[in-house]
Amino acid sequence: MHDRAPDGYPFLKGHGTHNDFVLLPDHDGTVHGDLADERVRALCDRRGGIGGDGVLRVVRRAGSEGGRWFMDYRNADGSVAEMCGNGIRVFARHLVDEGLVEAGRPLDIDTRAGTKRVVVLDGPGEHGRVQVDMGPPRLLGATTVGVDERTWSATHVDMGNPHAVAFVDDLADAGALTSAPTHDAATYPRGVNVEFVVRRGPAHLAMRVHERGSGETQACGTGACAVAVAATEVLGLERDVDLAIEQPGGTVTIRWTAEGRVLMTGPAVVVARGTTTL
Amino acid sequence: MHDRAPDGYPFLKGHGTHNDFVLLPDHDGTVHGDLADERVRALCDRRGGIGGDGVLRVVRRAGSEGGRWFMDYRNADGSVAEMCGNGIRVFARHLVDEGLVEAGRPLDIDTRAGTKRVVVLDGPGEHGRVQVDMGPPRLLGATTVGVDERTWSATHVDMGNPHAVAFVDDLADAGALTSAPTHDAATYPRGVNVEFVVRRGPAHLAMRVHERGSGETQACGTGACAVAVAATEVLGLERDVDLAIEQPGGTVTIRWTAEGRVLMTGPAVVVARGTTTL
Repeated sequence: MHDRAPDGYPFLKGHGTHNDFVLLPDHDGTVHGDLADERVRALCDRRGGIGGDGVLRVVRRAGSEGGRWFMDYRNADGSVAEMCGNGIRVFARHLVDEGLVEAGRPLDIDTRAGTKRVVVLDGPGEHGRVQVDMGPPRLLGATTVGVDERTWSATHVDMGNPHAVAFVDDLADAGALTSAPTHDAATYPRGVNVEFVVRRGPAHLAMRVHERGSGETQACGTGACAVAVAATEVLGLERDVDLAIEQPGGTVTIRWTAEGRVLMTGPAVVVARGTTTL
Repeated sequence: MHDRAPDGYPFLKGHGTHNDFVLLPDHDGTVHGDLADERVRALCDRRGGIGGDGVLRVVRRAGSEGGRWFMDYRNADGSVAEMCGNGIRVFARHLVDEGLVEAGRPLDIDTRAGTKRVVVLDGPGEHGRVQVDMGPPRLLGATTVGVDERTWSATHVDMGNPHAVAFVDDLADAGALTSAPTHDAATYPRGVNVEFVVRRGPAHLAMRVHERGSGETQACGTGACAVAVAATEVLGLERDVDLAIEQPGGTVTIRWTAEGRVLMTGPAVVVARGTTTL
């Protein structure tokens, strides 16, 4: 008796600075249509499924014959999310891997937070870099964050989502980060991502991040941007310089251009591809 | 420029009661040979890799043309392990899925803990059952385990590895289980897996397990066997009865036969297959 399981539908798995995703090619929307929350949860389940921080459904824009793609990003719980700076690098890496777009040329990817310009700089591989234009930051003044009995002054940066960037003497000062740092509820009525930062060199910063809703994570794309912007302001650094932002999951390079945009360059890799019945 | 990534080597992912594994088909040993620890760690990395509690390399025994297979089991850290009751069910499920062996017939699978007899009872699917003969238990008397300030009397059962099975009033009594329960170091010089158990019905028990070296896990195959054996002894249950053993990751059925063997029947499912470059 040959009792072979059905082959299911295609998937890929990849990550950017250890923020990891299940990719679902669905170019004309006929594989998944309106992707069900339960399927996202099943795919992201790290033991019962494939495992990931979220799902990136890869959709070709209706009426588009060329290289216009939509990143349908879902959190691991199935909820819709606007944009993910690590996810869009992996998304672009996949399009180049598959020969759907060309490396080395600007590529516009549609997201729920608008159209983002991306350039795949290197070929595939663990260190293959992808650059994303994360748009202009908004610097919104000083605030205060706290952990346990300690408090730090922090810089309020908005990258489309809210951040509070605090310089600390040692990254360990933030403790275990098992709960959200205290913050000014009037400034951040819907919560805030808090970055703790130390300077490691002239253009080298290291950070930890507590993301609202997720806890401490290995990497946060908008958080790394916020750190570079706040550091430029607080430390009086030059604009248009590549700052290395070291996170637990890997290092990205952030350039705050003279024109006022934030360019994030970081690794993106696809490690597996196949089919699943989930 | 078409910059497609290399396809790599084949893998599958599956789980039994949410104890999950990366399977590596390597029938003649030419794909992986002596599998490197670093590759196992890369595959089991839940963010940078595919993710799993361990790797099951699928090897055909030298000189065997028929259905004789060897389960080369590795822990997620790359270390060699003798046997895994949840893993061998997934291993057998894969062999049937691929048409390499027949469902419904006894199948002998070689492991580092000797040859195990397995029967794939159902077709593929989330609830497809696989039965494993886990061999005879050894009942070794009473002992004591503790968590925080509380202690319980426990039954010492050896299933090839050591267990201490403690009946509790409520599974929550064992607390957060963030560290190993206290136990008699003379009885268990190399540590012990500790099961906390409540009875839910005439032939229904529920358990939590703290595995030495791993902490609390979703499911433990030998632990479920030890619980059934200890419960039969302590509660004066009949032999040759199917006991439902409920674990956080799923339920297995354990039968301690009149002939003295322990048969474990539980689900095993392969959820994805593909290729990886890890």
